[in-house]
Amino acid sequence: MRGSNLKVRTEDGTQDLRAVWFDNGKAMMIDQRELPHRVKVVSFDDHKDVAEAIRNMTTRGAPSIGAAAAYGMCLASLSGADLDRASKDIKAARPTANDLFFAVDHMYTLLTKGSDPVTAADGYADMIVDKCTKIGEYGSRLIKDGMKIMTHCNAGALATVDVGTALAPIRKAWADGKRFFVYASETRPRLQGMQLTAWELYQEGIDHAVIPDGASAYYMEKGVDLIITGADRITANGDFANKIGTFDKAIAAKHFGIPFYVAAPISTFDFDMKGGKDIEIEQRSGKEVTEIGGMRIAPEGSPALNPAFDVTPAELVTAFVTEKGILNPKDIRRVMADE
Amino acid sequence: MRGSNLKVRTEDGTQDLRAVWFDNGKAMMIDQRELPHRVKVVSFDDHKDVAEAIRNMTTRGAPSIGAAAAYGMCLASLSGADLDRASKDIKAARPTANDLFFAVDHMYTLLTKGSDPVTAADGYADMIVDKCTKIGEYGSRLIKDGMKIMTHCNAGALATVDVGTALAPIRKAWADGKRFFVYASETRPRLQGMQLTAWELYQEGIDHAVIPDGASAYYMEKGVDLIITGADRITANGDFANKIGTFDKAIAAKHFGIPFYVAAPISTFDFDMKGGKDIEIEQRSGKEVTEIGGMRIAPEGSPALNPAFDVTPAELVTAFVTEKGILNPKDIRRVMADE
Repeated sequence: MRGSNLKVRTEDGTQDLRAVWFDNGKAMMIDQRELPHRVKVVSFDDHKDVAEAIRNMTTRGAPSIGAAAAYGMCLASLSGADLDRASKDIKAARPTANDLFFAVDHMYTLLTKGSDPVTAADGYADMIVDKCTKIGEYGSRLIKDGMKIMTHCNAGALATVDVGTALAPIRKAWADGKRFFVYASETRPRLQGMQLTAWELYQEGIDHAVIPDGASAYYMEKGVDLIITGADRITANGDFANKIGTFDKAIAAKHFGIPFYVAAPISTFDFDMKGGKDIEIEQRSGKEVTEIGGMRIAPEGSPALNPAFDVTPAELVTAFVTEKGILNPKDIRRVMADE
Repeated sequence: MRGSNLKVRTEDGTQDLRAVWFDNGKAMMIDQRELPHRVKVVSFDDHKDVAEAIRNMTTRGAPSIGAAAAYGMCLASLSGADLDRASKDIKAARPTANDLFFAVDHMYTLLTKGSDPVTAADGYADMIVDKCTKIGEYGSRLIKDGMKIMTHCNAGALATVDVGTALAPIRKAWADGKRFFVYASETRPRLQGMQLTAWELYQEGIDHAVIPDGASAYYMEKGVDLIITGADRITANGDFANKIGTFDKAIAAKHFGIPFYVAAPISTFDFDMKGGKDIEIEQRSGKEVTEIGGMRIAPEGSPALNPAFDVTPAELVTAFVTEKGILNPKDIRRVMADE
């Protein structure tokens, strides 16, 4: 494992962690269900417990899930478990994250070829972190002293083992000594902007404030220099799906002439999909809107709608920040040809 | 008092109420602090208790506060209290709502001229309701069967004694037998859209759903026919202040070509202010964002910003729905000349 960048403030100073890692024969994770209120590190020496930790969202974010799965396969191999059976168990943990299946298959191939389990799993995690680090290097060139930057949801280290996607340029620019201010929009209903992004920014000591999602235009009019978000999927024409509320921000950014960047590794591009209309949007339970901490906050008779993502059209995107550089939507076909 | 329109579902059917009214020698109010979880009606026979109910937000919304103040003056007069002293006590309840001072002075003048206290206070409340009723009549002409309508925050009966401003056309159109669907955006941080507007719509049996504020563009793209909000203040050029998040919706409405209406009585127009830049925006405590029900939901080290209102420029407004008809921003000067 090539170092950690996710700073965590503790009573004794600052500790550098990853969201998921391997130490002394155990798979380790920050229990993200406990954030932002406390940093609890959990460890597992059985791959079945890792599968359960993926299922119950101890760790979340597709790349972090992939790394957890890789360490699960590593544990299975170290304990001499049947790898076919272990692959099946781990893949069953979550239904949709493609990284989960990809990581298990990748590890299965390496392990059956006789690779060292820990080296192989660390290599998988490092590959993710390397991409994010490059995204940070390219993206940080966009950030100048004194800027005001807006982001939405959490595309940070917690979701991607370390460094993050949208947060990678912010982290790198701050580490390089640039000083700026970040508006983290809270991201209703699940509040990942408030509870995860703001938490990461605080750990890094980066100047920031949480704002309600509806305060975006208010602050953009006052002066935002750059907006950067992650993406869940980017189609061949440059349309992209991301957390609900991203589309609203992209429209407002266009209105005010503010550059809107999307940070994601090339693996987020789905060249089989022509455009955003092909993306199916997950409709989640209205309870995520009408309840907080199990307490109903809406009138009993009022239903809520809860689309998890929206699709922002390519024409609202200034450029994609990837590990291969900063690409505008029209560059995508060139990248596609290279792949 | 000329009837009530705020329907409230009870175990025995539906009851028609106002947010504030007078009955059997007492000032009555729906305790809005208990909504949406229960409908508690409170009554007062001492004007000092009415002042306290205004202060502690048992009732809220500038027009409802004005009516409560009028009933407070009525109680003072009925009990033979010193009217100068009572005026001072009631005016001290809240610092900013102009309606509070206006209502107290209006009642003081009538009472010192010998008007009947109950008739005078009911007259004040009826005047508000009459304006809202006319807003409903004009505005309901904009609503057609099968429409999808979006609103933000609460500009309903609870805020305006009865009927509402933005909700007046919706209420009237539904009562006329038109059938449509309302998206009530939840309106973070205080959730007036979820907790008050959705509650009113449910009481009326109007088809609706609560959506997160960030889901506005998602639903506008799917097809919203009309957006209608209230306003806290409208300046001479047609810029208007309203609950934070209104500006974001107006920008998105423009992007999609959806008509954006603002419902407000002429008294909301402030012809002394040239434009939106003159409006000072109240910055409220970040705790309204970082806490829910007294429980902190944000990381301990992360501050939040909480502007209560934003200012939407006139060019994003299709028209103002007033008791004098539907006026486009350019009609305002004509109305100004008439006043």
